[in-house]
Amino acid sequence: MVKHQVTNIKLDRLMKTIQQSAEIGTLPNGGICRLSLTDEDQKMRSLFLQWMKDCGLETRVDDFGNMYGRRKGRNNERAPVLAGSHLDTQPKGGKYDGVLGVLGALEVIRTLNDLGIETERPIEIVNFTNEEGARFQPAMLGSGAMAEIFNKQTILNMKDQKGFIFGEELERIGYKGLKENRQQDPFCFVELHIEQGPVLEDREKSIGVVTGIQGMSWLEAAITGRTSHTGTTPMNRRKDAVLLASKLIAKIYALAEEIPDLLVAVGRIQAFPNVINTVADQVVFSIDIRHPDDHVRERFEQQVKESLSTMTLVEGMELQIKDLDKIDTDSFSKEIIEVMEDAAEKHSFSYMRMLSGAGHDAKYLNRITPTAMLFIPSINGLSHCEEEFSTPEDIEKGVQVLFDTVLTLANKETL
Amino acid sequence: MVKHQVTNIKLDRLMKTIQQSAEIGTLPNGGICRLSLTDEDQKMRSLFLQWMKDCGLETRVDDFGNMYGRRKGRNNERAPVLAGSHLDTQPKGGKYDGVLGVLGALEVIRTLNDLGIETERPIEIVNFTNEEGARFQPAMLGSGAMAEIFNKQTILNMKDQKGFIFGEELERIGYKGLKENRQQDPFCFVELHIEQGPVLEDREKSIGVVTGIQGMSWLEAAITGRTSHTGTTPMNRRKDAVLLASKLIAKIYALAEEIPDLLVAVGRIQAFPNVINTVADQVVFSIDIRHPDDHVRERFEQQVKESLSTMTLVEGMELQIKDLDKIDTDSFSKEIIEVMEDAAEKHSFSYMRMLSGAGHDAKYLNRITPTAMLFIPSINGLSHCEEEFSTPEDIEKGVQVLFDTVLTLANKETL
Repeated sequence: MVKHQVTNIKLDRLMKTIQQSAEIGTLPNGGICRLSLTDEDQKMRSLFLQWMKDCGLETRVDDFGNMYGRRKGRNNERAPVLAGSHLDTQPKGGKYDGVLGVLGALEVIRTLNDLGIETERPIEIVNFTNEEGARFQPAMLGSGAMAEIFNKQTILNMKDQKGFIFGEELERIGYKGLKENRQQDPFCFVELHIEQGPVLEDREKSIGVVTGIQGMSWLEAAITGRTSHTGTTPMNRRKDAVLLASKLIAKIYALAEEIPDLLVAVGRIQAFPNVINTVADQVVFSIDIRHPDDHVRERFEQQVKESLSTMTLVEGMELQIKDLDKIDTDSFSKEIIEVMEDAAEKHSFSYMRMLSGAGHDAKYLNRITPTAMLFIPSINGLSHCEEEFSTPEDIEKGVQVLFDTVLTLANKETL
Repeated sequence: MVKHQVTNIKLDRLMKTIQQSAEIGTLPNGGICRLSLTDEDQKMRSLFLQWMKDCGLETRVDDFGNMYGRRKGRNNERAPVLAGSHLDTQPKGGKYDGVLGVLGALEVIRTLNDLGIETERPIEIVNFTNEEGARFQPAMLGSGAMAEIFNKQTILNMKDQKGFIFGEELERIGYKGLKENRQQDPFCFVELHIEQGPVLEDREKSIGVVTGIQGMSWLEAAITGRTSHTGTTPMNRRKDAVLLASKLIAKIYALAEEIPDLLVAVGRIQAFPNVINTVADQVVFSIDIRHPDDHVRERFEQQVKESLSTMTLVEGMELQIKDLDKIDTDSFSKEIIEVMEDAAEKHSFSYMRMLSGAGHDAKYLNRITPTAMLFIPSINGLSHCEEEFSTPEDIEKGVQVLFDTVLTLANKETL
């Protein structure tokens, strides 16, 4: 028997708000298609703007289209607590994803208003532009641009697949604001998001206190063998790049099995000339490696490189392994993590610390201000699909912990 | 010490003729690009037509552009011996390939003329249209159409990649002839070709007496797993189609190792969604299986299907294996094979019986008339590339055996 938890937030109101969002860009099976800077995004932004105004927030938009709503504190000279996420979705996205983080932050404001609570610091809620990277690459564009990770002109000139330009689309939907509206010096940033994996569900925890974003290495392996006619070339005269690739890929996964918590995947593979009756002379494949400990990840990467090179040498073929990308694990603020844990403890919500496997706006905010994230379970680990689902119970708990966290931080002197 | 072999043919004349052909569509590294029904093909055809006329042959062109030159016999009511191959090449083809078979047949005629030999039956030499299948698919189009393997209207309406229509291109270059010009009832057909593999060179034989065209099975395997985010999905929760594909492919090759003379290749592979940070939910790959014995090939095919299905079941994924194509081994005429062996013996040329791994015009001719082929070695087994090379010594021997074979057959009562 689970005892009913008393919370401050109004779950019905929040679920209704999430449902109103889900009606903009609705897909047949309950998901949403709301790509950044489309008419659907514009419609969602207008609604969100209205909701912020209805709460008495001072709203503003910066030069990347990031939207802010400010709730004054007792001392408005002080840096605000920033909370939010993103309202855009994947082409076949779910209702929750980043939407929960933005509308959860709105619910925090509404609850503070309900309870007539005044905070020491101001609080700002935020909707970041184009987090998904589904229409314009890179992903986490609005937060990254605000944190000056990306060059402004490059961002504004970026084109989608049809050739539409980011800066022009931003103006077209009426959300190109001013540079001075950026929030580049907040006291801290907190983001609630769905987990997008099955860990919380597997461990039967309602809250994930996210201690950082897991690092990764992206490699690309290119095998060169020799092309020949499959009908005329004896097996022992071939240098079959597909055969070698299959052995190398199986080896990568076998090596990974020996290392706890290591994630690896070959997601992309291409053979050349890719013809049924020709032995392939080239295969190129990607290797995505992740581990909470950067050193373990790097050691594994070395091990893969050495093993694969040796195996290729034995077969008399050639192998080139390129480093495509490498990002070390980002660690979030220990102080905010403790505030989040205290909040979960206070309400007797089950929780655990975990790393985020995916990138989030919090990743770039963490470069400029103390940051941490909260996760709630995704049923069956599903996300970026119409079937994405989190239970109302977990949503309630997640937003309640967000409420307690924001409130505590907004009254904190220092971090 | 190899004793010089006395031959009837004039190697210098033949090599000069091959060189004149190599000057039409020449590539930088000594190869030829002479796709069917292009301006280059037209130029080559005109030259070949002139050469045939210069030999006193009666020339004609059929409704698929196949070109014939007829040398009368003593008894012109009797069905002629047909000999030839094709003058078109791959986009980066070599100088020899089918060219050798056509110009070798021309050299046979020239030599018969030199020696003033009259034969009982007429002899016809032939250049088949679009054997390579590089511009218009299917390959062996002219011979297949003549043998009524393909539907005439389908063939005439076929388009190349740019949208040019076969029938229109045939008219454009001036080689659309008459249906009644087809040679559908020859006494027999013989074709000289380069081996396109390394077997003759490895066994140090100058002549391959080709006993048939090896059969094959083309399969397509489609694995369905489950897509998931590589950063957030624990290894034991994944259904990684690339991982399973690598195991299945390695298994196919391992099974093949146990069966002598079995050839197998996975030449084509495609993963979906084929994205670096997403576990692939689908991989589709081809399996090309060949063996001289159709029963062995079919047993192997069954073994592959059963093994792969079991392995897939264990991993909790799904596998569909489709039969794309299946062709049994074609056996050539035992009588012609013996005539060829006798000719090689007579000149003390080293020879061996072998199957052809690739398709040739002889494949379709074999459906309508007694047929056999001669191969000569390809250095390093290379073909369909600019480096393709056969030595003048082997060319001389090959054309001499062709000469003896044609001469014997043209005086034969029955087969």
